[in-house]
Amino acid sequence: MPSRDLSAFFRPASIAVIGASADPSHIRGRILTQLVKSGYPGRIIPVHPRGGEMLGLPVSPSIGAVGAPVDLALIAIPADAVAGVLEECSAAGVRAAYIFSSGFAEEGGDKRALQQQISAIAERTQMLIAGPNAVGFMNVNLPLVASFTPAVDFAELPRLRAAPALRRIAVVSQSGGLAFAFFNRGIKRRLPFSYVVNTGNEAALDLVDIGEFLVSDEQTGVLLLFIEQIRRGPAFVALAERALRLGKPLIVAKIGRSGAARRAAVSHTASMTGSDTAYEAVFRRYGVIRGEDQDDMLDIAAAAALAPEPLGRRIGVVTISGGVGGWLADTLETQGLSVPEFSPALQAQLRTFLPSFAATGNPIDITGQAIGTDYRLRSIETLEASDEIDAIVVGNSLAADSRLPLEKAALGEIAARRRKPILFYSYPLPSAEAQRDLEEVGIPLYTGIRGVARALSLLAERNDARAAQSRSTASVQSASAARGAAASLLDRAGATLTEAESLAVLQTYGVPVPRHRLVDSAAAAVEAARTIGFPVALKVQSPEIPHKSDVGALALNLRSEAAIVEAYDTVLAHARRAVPTARITGVLVQAMAAPGLELILGISHDQTFGPMLLLGRGGVDAEALGDRAMTPLPLDTAAAERLVDQFDRGRFLSAHRNRRARDRRALVGLMLALAQIAQDFAGRLMEIDLNPVILGAEGEGAMAVDALMVQRTEGAKE
Amino acid sequence: MPSRDLSAFFRPASIAVIGASADPSHIRGRILTQLVKSGYPGRIIPVHPRGGEMLGLPVSPSIGAVGAPVDLALIAIPADAVAGVLEECSAAGVRAAYIFSSGFAEEGGDKRALQQQISAIAERTQMLIAGPNAVGFMNVNLPLVASFTPAVDFAELPRLRAAPALRRIAVVSQSGGLAFAFFNRGIKRRLPFSYVVNTGNEAALDLVDIGEFLVSDEQTGVLLLFIEQIRRGPAFVALAERALRLGKPLIVAKIGRSGAARRAAVSHTASMTGSDTAYEAVFRRYGVIRGEDQDDMLDIAAAAALAPEPLGRRIGVVTISGGVGGWLADTLETQGLSVPEFSPALQAQLRTFLPSFAATGNPIDITGQAIGTDYRLRSIETLEASDEIDAIVVGNSLAADSRLPLEKAALGEIAARRRKPILFYSYPLPSAEAQRDLEEVGIPLYTGIRGVARALSLLAERNDARAAQSRSTASVQSASAARGAAASLLDRAGATLTEAESLAVLQTYGVPVPRHRLVDSAAAAVEAARTIGFPVALKVQSPEIPHKSDVGALALNLRSEAAIVEAYDTVLAHARRAVPTARITGVLVQAMAAPGLELILGISHDQTFGPMLLLGRGGVDAEALGDRAMTPLPLDTAAAERLVDQFDRGRFLSAHRNRRARDRRALVGLMLALAQIAQDFAGRLMEIDLNPVILGAEGEGAMAVDALMVQRTEGAKE
Repeated sequence: MPSRDLSAFFRPASIAVIGASADPSHIRGRILTQLVKSGYPGRIIPVHPRGGEMLGLPVSPSIGAVGAPVDLALIAIPADAVAGVLEECSAAGVRAAYIFSSGFAEEGGDKRALQQQISAIAERTQMLIAGPNAVGFMNVNLPLVASFTPAVDFAELPRLRAAPALRRIAVVSQSGGLAFAFFNRGIKRRLPFSYVVNTGNEAALDLVDIGEFLVSDEQTGVLLLFIEQIRRGPAFVALAERALRLGKPLIVAKIGRSGAARRAAVSHTASMTGSDTAYEAVFRRYGVIRGEDQDDMLDIAAAAALAPEPLGRRIGVVTISGGVGGWLADTLETQGLSVPEFSPALQAQLRTFLPSFAATGNPIDITGQAIGTDYRLRSIETLEASDEIDAIVVGNSLAADSRLPLEKAALGEIAARRRKPILFYSYPLPSAEAQRDLEEVGIPLYTGIRGVARALSLLAERNDARAAQSRSTASVQSASAARGAAASLLDRAGATLTEAESLAVLQTYGVPVPRHRLVDSAAAAVEAARTIGFPVALKVQSPEIPHKSDVGALALNLRSEAAIVEAYDTVLAHARRAVPTARITGVLVQAMAAPGLELILGISHDQTFGPMLLLGRGGVDAEALGDRAMTPLPLDTAAAERLVDQFDRGRFLSAHRNRRARDRRALVGLMLALAQIAQDFAGRLMEIDLNPVILGAEGEGAMAVDALMVQRTEGAKE
Repeated sequence: MPSRDLSAFFRPASIAVIGASADPSHIRGRILTQLVKSGYPGRIIPVHPRGGEMLGLPVSPSIGAVGAPVDLALIAIPADAVAGVLEECSAAGVRAAYIFSSGFAEEGGDKRALQQQISAIAERTQMLIAGPNAVGFMNVNLPLVASFTPAVDFAELPRLRAAPALRRIAVVSQSGGLAFAFFNRGIKRRLPFSYVVNTGNEAALDLVDIGEFLVSDEQTGVLLLFIEQIRRGPAFVALAERALRLGKPLIVAKIGRSGAARRAAVSHTASMTGSDTAYEAVFRRYGVIRGEDQDDMLDIAAAAALAPEPLGRRIGVVTISGGVGGWLADTLETQGLSVPEFSPALQAQLRTFLPSFAATGNPIDITGQAIGTDYRLRSIETLEASDEIDAIVVGNSLAADSRLPLEKAALGEIAARRRKPILFYSYPLPSAEAQRDLEEVGIPLYTGIRGVARALSLLAERNDARAAQSRSTASVQSASAARGAAASLLDRAGATLTEAESLAVLQTYGVPVPRHRLVDSAAAAVEAARTIGFPVALKVQSPEIPHKSDVGALALNLRSEAAIVEAYDTVLAHARRAVPTARITGVLVQAMAAPGLELILGISHDQTFGPMLLLGRGGVDAEALGDRAMTPLPLDTAAAERLVDQFDRGRFLSAHRNRRARDRRALVGLMLALAQIAQDFAGRLMEIDLNPVILGAEGEGAMAVDALMVQRTEGAKE
């Protein structure tokens, strides 16, 4: 899906400011004055009915009277007047409009209608419209500041444009308050930015539109998104996939985990959104990094912008303090990284220039005595060249580091050829000089060890997602025979399929299920059990009784004909007592599955992202254990493998003491088959629940022992 | 245990600087110049063989030649000369010495002997000795700066002393690099300090000694500790208990979680330490808060120093931005706090002054339109007076807040009478003016939401530990009868008790165990089973086969006499094959326990902290599940209850769907009995392992189904 061309916004040749004022004590006045102050190189046309001149610029009395093409209109007028002005803009051929004015959906009530007018105009005229109720945006490199925010330090802009960076950061925020707050904090720590955009109420263009444009933008290599709500789930997924493929990290905040945040969102935007678990699953699948607060996101962005991607999790640590080295090592390992002991060969290499009192095992502790030596620099050089580690963390005291200016050129050379991240951490707050020196050589500087560890860990995890993406098969295989057979099964079934019907659908896709037969008498049950083999289960089949065990409508482990005869009547009686009106389609006689690990596999539909595959533990404590993992469809082998990894983390599926490893391959095969069914009947099969799936040891396979499917039926076939 | 009187260190009337220099480009020179610059009010005596004058002060050629009492000697001379000078100090009646010099144990090899000399002098002379290899210390309020660190901003000290604080922060650090780095960061965010101490190599005084003195110090209300290693576990526990009782939070960093940190520690200090899990258990038990990095610790310290303790977890949020409010709410809940919806009555009260567009449910969103109004102040006032919440978080923009100066007086009044924490958070970086205004009214200011949430959550958790401490019973009950009976059982047993012997010890303390009998023939086994009742288990008893199930030396669920006869030979054969030389003392016939939740209870010994009680899940997946909790002995009911809470978090023990709640009271009783046994035989019973304990539903009790005890035997009774 090609992104919309938003160059009229971000690189306009001319800008009209509608509702212009030259008085910087008013919001409107700040828009014009800051636009001028930013050094925007195009034409600026203040528009105001009074005409005259503002800041030396001739004022046009209306947009229609400009008499020249206008790329972008910045609109800051009362809410009531906005729709009319947009019509005028459209008539005058204006290509894009950014509406600052508030007093729309955020106030609720009949103000919503005013916002709907804007949406309608956008759709009808195809003019690009952002806002309303928005704080503004900036293009650092044009330059262009279109905002009333007081958070832009204009003196910093030239430096910001000049500093080297592997990738520049674009901020896109649905929160007006936070958009420039990210930028403001980021430039204080000398991070490189390309754009800052607040999307406001998103009457027309939304965060995904802006993201799509920026991910294709050459100047931008990292996207930092503050998300209250994704309005178009599949488009967001496409954006995330694209960003992953292009190696442009998405670092996001997404609010709405808590009941309180949902209350706030409803009162704020009057809209609900998909479950946070589904967002989390989508983020994980497509390598989107979720940050915890502003500084956390900037910590991650710093490494993303300034360092090569970490291709693994093995970290080499260089420090001048044993305490700092140990704390770094602890924190790196807590965040899922490793600080492996160096090989004897590598340690011998370090010993050629390090003194006897230095530790060389990893962390390398050159100790405080080494201040004034080149031990730090040579240690970095050595680790940079080694294959034993994937990233380097240097724990320094940069409050007054007299070596840094001397080593700057050499560090710059290392940085220029580095293949792995080199991150500096200073345990005292660093001097301004040290900050500047490291900015100039493009090495990210941290003041917190947690930030160092989070950045490396999350970027390594993103790299895993990227590797899975590159392994992913081109497209889902068609299975037209299975699909046709399943379709006719579904045609014959009602809204809620019985277990027998659900098992039949699974079988058409090759999913192993226990031997079974549907019977309608105790005698037939006995006969079936003889064929199937003892022990067996009896399960009453009825669309009205989807959860048989809750009402005693099943009996397990029946080992004799007598037991079957007795149980047959019992389970039917239980079923009839529980749901007297239930339509019973028979009793399923089913072989008992061999013992194995009980799992749950299912498909559910998320409001934002559509069908999701769920993998969980089964059995009594399943809910209490809370082991669940979820991923959006479509699924391929690589994604299924990653989901299993995430679910398991080496606990249940791998060999352990006397226990054999589980048949992971069979599990992945079953997941793929399930995902295939869900996709083949997307929009029709709304819910699939395999509970339990019994997973055997390696080579023993996986089996769906019970299944429940719910389909959307047109004209209710009962 | 009374703390040692360290006033000669911290409040000396006179200080000799041995190895003094007035040249601030040398470390030694900085010690004297900074001491003078700090405004230390006592007498300063530079000591140097050359005599003369330094900085206008008469120099004494030796400590013996001073001719007046000296409280404290600051020693910065070559390592070789230190012991001699200490002897001179002792002879001259010097009360305390702080040794900066390096070149001791940290360099390893024969330098360790130099350090042992210092330890010996300290012990013999009872002079208070800190260091060597140390960076210094300061007493903010005296004032006194005894350090060569460049990290002290002397211009800030008067302000630091004047600012209001509920509690002042003392830093005690085993890392020299980090000691003043904490202080330096803290004063940048305007936190109140009392002391900073680096303990260096701890040849004599250690971190616990310093902590004991400071926890009794009136000026100090919060201790911030950087710990590489606790040398005296029980003394640390006593310090932590005392701090908890006094309401003085301990906020610690403890390194050594990772293999790499342990490698670093070994190479750095040549010493090993107890397991990190044991540290964690001690911290949790005594409300010690473990921080993640410097800023995290200062975030927690800020609330600890400036706000009343949060007595619960219900947080009220006031904000001007929906996005910020939602993000705060999410983060607070992620950290275990709640942001409950306000009652209709409280909302009605808020509506009396808030406009219709404001949200009042919690978060209170007064919106950006409210800038310039008193909505924020009145919302804070209202929440302060409400019983519905335990703390208030205000999400502001303090980059250029024109209301704050106007509201400062009113905020000061609220702060003066507040009963709950009020924390300000600014999403843009705050102006210096806003920082100063909030410092002056004593309200803590945050720039990260995670820090806000961590501080409130961890302080609330500490409050739980304090409540448990206040509920705790005065002393462990004596159980002399049980003790006597168990002692004679232990006397008769070998180093590894058999299950039958272990069960007998448990029974003397009233621990329920299954009916059982020890037999030596299949016929006797059948006879025993008739008495006990079917089904039964057969278990071969041998001190050489502690783990019977690993070798097949047990048979479960035997339901008939025939089955017993067959199994009897089988289990014995398995046992003999596994350990041909095993001394078999019989076969235990044991009633099968009723089904229930399988748990593990045990006692193990930690190198630093001694006996710890362990509670874990049993069964096949126990290790994989990783559900374990540990606490140091002694144990009382309140501590046992907290351990169960921590272990369970409402998952296994509480009622769930069709499952009844477990017999929690029986579990606590069993834990207390086990702890009693461990204490009664402290130093003798080195390991106790009850695996499994079967925990029934409420009223059904808990039962130890298998038990293993290991005792330390003198003169090996084999």
